Amino acid sequence: MAMETVPARRGRAVRLMAGQAIRIVNTHGTQVVDTWAFNAADPGEFLSMPHLHAALGSVFPARGDALVTNRRRPILMLEEDTSPGRHDTVIAACDVHRYQSLGCAGYHDNCTDNLQAALAMIGFPATLCPPPLNLWMNIPIAADGRITWGEPLSRPGDHVVLRAVMDCVVAMSACPQDMIPINGRDCTPVEVQYEVIA
Amino acid sequence: MAMETVPARRGRAVRLMAGQAIRIVNTHGTQVVDTWAFNAADPGEFLSMPHLHAALGSVFPARGDALVTNRRRPILMLEEDTSPGRHDTVIAACDVHRYQSLGCAGYHDNCTDNLQAALAMIGFPATLCPPPLNLWMNIPIAADGRITWGEPLSRPGDHVVLRAVMDCVVAMSACPQDMIPINGRDCTPVEVQYEVIA
Repeated sequence: MAMETVPARRGRAVRLMAGQAIRIVNTHGTQVVDTWAFNAADPGEFLSMPHLHAALGSVFPARGDALVTNRRRPILMLEEDTSPGRHDTVIAACDVHRYQSLGCAGYHDNCTDNLQAALAMIGFPATLCPPPLNLWMNIPIAADGRITWGEPLSRPGDHVVLRAVMDCVVAMSACPQDMIPINGRDCTPVEVQYEVIA
Repeated sequence: MAMETVPARRGRAVRLMAGQAIRIVNTHGTQVVDTWAFNAADPGEFLSMPHLHAALGSVFPARGDALVTNRRRPILMLEEDTSPGRHDTVIAACDVHRYQSLGCAGYHDNCTDNLQAALAMIGFPATLCPPPLNLWMNIPIAADGRITWGEPLSRPGDHVVLRAVMDCVVAMSACPQDMIPINGRDCTPVEVQYEVIA
């Protein structure tokens, strides 16, 4: 499979067989990618951040970590990560309500809707929006619990490789957040690329 | 309504009308209470920790905070909190898989099943187990993301008051974790009490 694009502000989903992997490339270095995974045989089993925290003893997954589902089974391995490794696991996917609260009057593209559109494109029936793995989203957490909405620390071309432990669907959304600088100080969402590899 | 008991290792659920509140008392001071809330008119809308983090800019809710749903609407107000205020919002409810991974061979009581049993007792049809608000669960998060499974900082009789902003169902589980000291160094789950107040 050749390199494919997740267009700016949009979502894509792919099916992986166990043993296959997806390489996700932060083409411009500034783009957050909300990422989900579902058991291909059961959309009720999915990559789950609150379960991941217990499994890892950490809110920041690192290279070599098994990423687990809501049934505490590995679904993906974080096999490679060329970036500084700062990915968020505590913030919900953005949605129309989020942009309304930030002052957007009309519709705004959002990761929650992008997930549904991406899954519909490949005919996968999940309707939930589980808390995502927010690749490259930089959310420091202070000892008193306060979070900071930081800019990504990643560089152009940084990538992660996620290897499927079970047959699964991986969905990605190139986050359309352009009202706060979570996708870099220019507040300009851009595309990212991905490829399925053996 | 008089004081009621959530027995050790069990769950309970109550319906609150908007404006009513529930007072939850940590009778012995050492007990974690996994807590959920659902819109009474729609089990698809529920108190959601990942959305709460974005709303609060913090992983630790504090007195006076509005606790929001997956549609970013306030469902409960954290109106009172006599404890040191350390409640966890990043760890999933325990489940059979969690106890298996800790070495339990047979069935172990768990908060995920307690939620379903509690909701069934009042005839509420939710089947999801959203990430809970883990009252009094003490999970410090270090700057590098590492979490610690601490003992509760609460004292006997500490309580919180959660006031309903919308008609809702509040469910609680007196966490049956007895394999690590999350419910105090004695690893002895105990009962807690609650009352619905005007």
